[in-house]
Amino acid sequence: MTAPRTIGTMKVLWIFAHPEQRSLNASLMRDGLRELALHGHESQVSDLYGMGWKAVLDAADVRPVPASGSRFAVGAEQERAYLGGEQSEDIRAEQEKITWADTLVFHFPLWWFGPPAILKGWLDRVLVQGFAFGVRDADGRTLRYGEGGLAGKRALVITSVGARESSFGPRGIHGHIDQVLWPLLHGTFWYTGMAAHEPFVVHGADRLGPAGYEDVARGLRRLLRGLPEAAPLAYRHESGGDYDEDLTLQPWIAPGQAGLGVHEVCAEPAPTG
Amino acid sequence: MTAPRTIGTMKVLWIFAHPEQRSLNASLMRDGLRELALHGHESQVSDLYGMGWKAVLDAADVRPVPASGSRFAVGAEQERAYLGGEQSEDIRAEQEKITWADTLVFHFPLWWFGPPAILKGWLDRVLVQGFAFGVRDADGRTLRYGEGGLAGKRALVITSVGARESSFGPRGIHGHIDQVLWPLLHGTFWYTGMAAHEPFVVHGADRLGPAGYEDVARGLRRLLRGLPEAAPLAYRHESGGDYDEDLTLQPWIAPGQAGLGVHEVCAEPAPTG
Repeated sequence: MTAPRTIGTMKVLWIFAHPEQRSLNASLMRDGLRELALHGHESQVSDLYGMGWKAVLDAADVRPVPASGSRFAVGAEQERAYLGGEQSEDIRAEQEKITWADTLVFHFPLWWFGPPAILKGWLDRVLVQGFAFGVRDADGRTLRYGEGGLAGKRALVITSVGARESSFGPRGIHGHIDQVLWPLLHGTFWYTGMAAHEPFVVHGADRLGPAGYEDVARGLRRLLRGLPEAAPLAYRHESGGDYDEDLTLQPWIAPGQAGLGVHEVCAEPAPTG
Repeated sequence: MTAPRTIGTMKVLWIFAHPEQRSLNASLMRDGLRELALHGHESQVSDLYGMGWKAVLDAADVRPVPASGSRFAVGAEQERAYLGGEQSEDIRAEQEKITWADTLVFHFPLWWFGPPAILKGWLDRVLVQGFAFGVRDADGRTLRYGEGGLAGKRALVITSVGARESSFGPRGIHGHIDQVLWPLLHGTFWYTGMAAHEPFVVHGADRLGPAGYEDVARGLRRLLRGLPEAAPLAYRHESGGDYDEDLTLQPWIAPGQAGLGVHEVCAEPAPTG
């Protein structure tokens, strides 16, 4: 259903959102990029703080700026500017990097259980209708969830938290990290067609000594080496027959169950009758 | 466990994040504020776009700005600046409004299944350690989830989506809206001690005619009138005995289950033995 993912050499766009270049996360990024180069992968970096990335989507993102008398209809204006080559230059440059890449890494400290505003603003401004989503097939069907403007790419979250691992586990008080990150993993990556990989999480980030850091860096290097062959999260395709016309799960899928977990494929009885 | 919530007259801080003053959301806010005034409630508005709110947390948020030789340790510097009265003025002003309010309304269009960057940046910059969280009781225990710096207040999300209602329902493809908004409802509101209310969601926001708008506005007015007496989402208290030392659910709570839903209180068998 999706284009085949690249096996072998990767083209990685590493999107980094941390205000401090001497942070643990900045060190991890350097280690990661070095490992990628060592294995023949190519990479580009969007260091959002370093670039002074404009976080806030507004009417200045599109040209001509809507006249003061006319309403700024956000999604429609973004699409018009994208299709007409009238987006602001910083947005266009990021879309070009995404088009080049087959792998997107989103690397950030977890703030209020999500990405820092500067990264949220990268999503808001760059992943516009017509480019990342709202794309149609030959029959006029809108492609979403497993298909879409970014289909065939893979995406990986790398994030750091102060909390210990158990508290982000399946029954941990903060919620399971895969479900806490649902808006990114399912709502952004999978929605636009990208395969979402299991996030790489640094726990107890405030308390890591040098030995702890080495463990984490080793884990990240291993994950990056294996990424071309790794299986992504098994989210259901919108067009795979699991959803009905109202975009709800068919009654024979995970019957009687609810919650975000039902949108992952697992062993289940086939429909009968 | 938490301070009693105000019954009767509310002091509402309405935090609004939409770039267009002629949007459906802007109209809804005006309707909502009018209804509040009509019933004797007080309100203040933080119109983030209108204020030109700075979305990006950085070292300039704290004074003195960390010297170029020293690392910007985000959480610790925010807390130091808060306690020492050395935060930038825009942050201090928002904290003062929060302290005044007993009810916080977060009103935004849902972009990538979360708040626009300008609002995410309000959370990142304003809800600092020592003020909203990381507060301890007399025994040195850190107060979280049902207790904390904002305990006794209530919080309400008002948001608009293009999708139809079924797709955000319990088995809808986008995920149930309460779980999609988990980082805000549980991870921000409840974490800091605020009672999180069921979100008010405008579905099919791009396709609402005048009659549709009137229905929505009527629903919002009704909700606002009832808010002082409304029951919030029944999330579990961290200190209520439902979690163990590792911050995972006790084995007798929702045994064998996982997913975000287990963190809500529901009828369940009492532990035996």
